[in-house]
Amino acid sequence: MAEENTIYIGKKATMNYVLAVVSQLNSGCEGVCIKARGRAISRAVDVAEIVRNRFAQGLNYHDVKIATESLPGHDGTNANVSSIEIYLSK
Amino acid sequence: MAEENTIYIGKKATMNYVLAVVSQLNSGCEGVCIKARGRAISRAVDVAEIVRNRFAQGLNYHDVKIATESLPGHDGTNANVSSIEIYLSK
Repeated sequence: MAEENTIYIGKKATMNYVLAVVSQLNSGCEGVCIKARGRAISRAVDVAEIVRNRFAQGLNYHDVKIATESLPGHDGTNANVSSIEIYLSK
Repeated sequence: MAEENTIYIGKKATMNYVLAVVSQLNSGCEGVCIKARGRAISRAVDVAEIVRNRFAQGLNYHDVKIATESLPGHDGTNANVSSIEIYLSK
């Protein structure tokens, strides 16, 4: 999936991301990828479910991928953080 | 998958659940299901990744399911909560 169809979930309110996903879909994309790391993972799942149940009923989960990313921490060591990628498509 | 192979993720420390999953696997189960709701979803993903990367290298994601559950709230109305089910198998 093209990089521009990816929505990264951060610390903003859930509905901001819902709006971003819905706009992406309305611009003619066949699908979107929702990505999140760490504690934003539960928000990513919320975003996907709200979009599916309220805004885009025909949308289905194409794939859900779980992985671990190694990020450099403040003290120079690496911290492992879980990540999720949710692929939604029409 | 049988109900007894399911680990429910709550508010305890992540490693408690990792231990529960590893014990379940060591007792001869072919796979486990990790379930969580709401903010525990990110912890569920952490548990699955720690088990896979550190304790049971041969384990793979069989399926990851995302859904919405409607729970009765304090004021009698229903609250929608996202949930995740992560199926790990050998």
